[in-house]
Amino acid sequence: MKELTGTTLLTGLLGKPVKHSKSPLMHNKAFELLDLDYRYLCFEVDTDGLKTAIEGLRTLGVRGFNLTMPNKNLMCELCDKLDIGSEISGAVNTVVNDNGVFTGYTTDGVGFMRAAKDAGHDLTGKKMVLLGAGGVASAILVQAALDKVAEIKVFSIRDQFFSRAEGIVDQINNKTSCKVSLYDFDDESLFKTALSEADILVNGTSVGMSPKVDACIIKDEYFKDSSIIKPSLVVSDVIYEPAETKLLRLAKEAGCSTFNGMYMLLYQGAESFRLWTGKEMPTDTIKELYF
Amino acid sequence: MKELTGTTLLTGLLGKPVKHSKSPLMHNKAFELLDLDYRYLCFEVDTDGLKTAIEGLRTLGVRGFNLTMPNKNLMCELCDKLDIGSEISGAVNTVVNDNGVFTGYTTDGVGFMRAAKDAGHDLTGKKMVLLGAGGVASAILVQAALDKVAEIKVFSIRDQFFSRAEGIVDQINNKTSCKVSLYDFDDESLFKTALSEADILVNGTSVGMSPKVDACIIKDEYFKDSSIIKPSLVVSDVIYEPAETKLLRLAKEAGCSTFNGMYMLLYQGAESFRLWTGKEMPTDTIKELYF
Repeated sequence: MKELTGTTLLTGLLGKPVKHSKSPLMHNKAFELLDLDYRYLCFEVDTDGLKTAIEGLRTLGVRGFNLTMPNKNLMCELCDKLDIGSEISGAVNTVVNDNGVFTGYTTDGVGFMRAAKDAGHDLTGKKMVLLGAGGVASAILVQAALDKVAEIKVFSIRDQFFSRAEGIVDQINNKTSCKVSLYDFDDESLFKTALSEADILVNGTSVGMSPKVDACIIKDEYFKDSSIIKPSLVVSDVIYEPAETKLLRLAKEAGCSTFNGMYMLLYQGAESFRLWTGKEMPTDTIKELYF
Repeated sequence: MKELTGTTLLTGLLGKPVKHSKSPLMHNKAFELLDLDYRYLCFEVDTDGLKTAIEGLRTLGVRGFNLTMPNKNLMCELCDKLDIGSEISGAVNTVVNDNGVFTGYTTDGVGFMRAAKDAGHDLTGKKMVLLGAGGVASAILVQAALDKVAEIKVFSIRDQFFSRAEGIVDQINNKTSCKVSLYDFDDESLFKTALSEADILVNGTSVGMSPKVDACIIKDEYFKDSSIIKPSLVVSDVIYEPAETKLLRLAKEAGCSTFNGMYMLLYQGAESFRLWTGKEMPTDTIKELYF
């Protein structure tokens, strides 16, 4: 690896928890493979400390950084400029520092779309059912619309994100050709119809994530009814721990193609990497080593 | 080297300029040799940005950092606690962060004393002439007094450091058994007498540093008079670029033992390393590699 010297640039991750993140492994290995003079470190910072931390990072002249929970929404307010994806979703997971000017991006959506492509699915012109309206789900929503998915039905519980999601949906309908609508997750009849008509289902919530691996956002009985969950439906999950959530297991048993959030994690990182360095992350090698 | 992960701790250097610093090389190699989960990076920050930068570093949970010009004095005001050396000299070159509490140390003096010992000189009970009253000179002054040098005559031009030096001298005379006095550098007669009586001369100023390598703080004629510069005088310089300043070259020609600031740099770093990690830097290996 290129020796760490007085010119080495810092990048990193701000969130809580971050100690078990794969991001330093993938970024530092990619820096090494491309002989780039950067390092990536993790910092345990939550929303209480975020403003102080990023003002420090600006003064320290870091090249940029990633944000994970719980910092994505607050970071959106703290940027000088926003990419369209962040502007619409209200979330930032990547900041690029150009001489003290912070531009915010959300690369989760790009990561998801690239992971879908990797799994063999071209979503252009397709119908999507998206579950959830938090940071990650919003990022996928925006990017899917920008990438010409034809129709997206978002189902969300009426939590703190619901009203914000209404605004996001309006903006997407105004700014893209994608037809997006937002529904209350409790409306079972609409949900069943949407599923029956969809090409791809995306779980953008944390339901089913380790340690609560017995949870599944879709009722078991739906999987037994092929008029609701048909074998041609692609089922994906943003979760990667466990690698196979209950959702993906039941979908597979119902004959569906599935993919989890692992490569979304890889590709959102690759997009951040590209924004900081201007280079493509050697994702094939990184996949073999860490994914 | 231990892989950079989510638990890796940051240390570093804040100053301007810092891009050509040897510190990242020595610290990162020492972390590697001892298999410690740390990295050391340089950040170009001057006094304008120092407060913002260090508040950020506190929030980011770094283990500690070094300060170089022009930040040593301002950092002294920004610490929560001070080591006695920093308290007296008013300069901090090392900060240790214990759960958000910043303690300031000055390790330049420790570095100098250890470099003198390395060069074969036990300064206990000896008479020193010290040139300069800036940050590095003050740090040497305090440590030499604490380490039982018998008498120190400080010669300084009447610059912005002179009146501060008067306070330092008073404190050392009150708190240690060392006899310290401060003189105007322009008082040639006193200076010649002091030199003639001294065991060691220390140039603690930047006179003679690259690129102004033709400068020498001592008049040429003094070297030709062995009643002023006698062969038994040890002559040292805090400068290490060039490795042999004009001062050291003329002193060597006059038969004096000499040593430059190179190992002072090494040992001040080793002391910072010890304060952050609790471990001894493997200085023999670091010397071979970088000094």
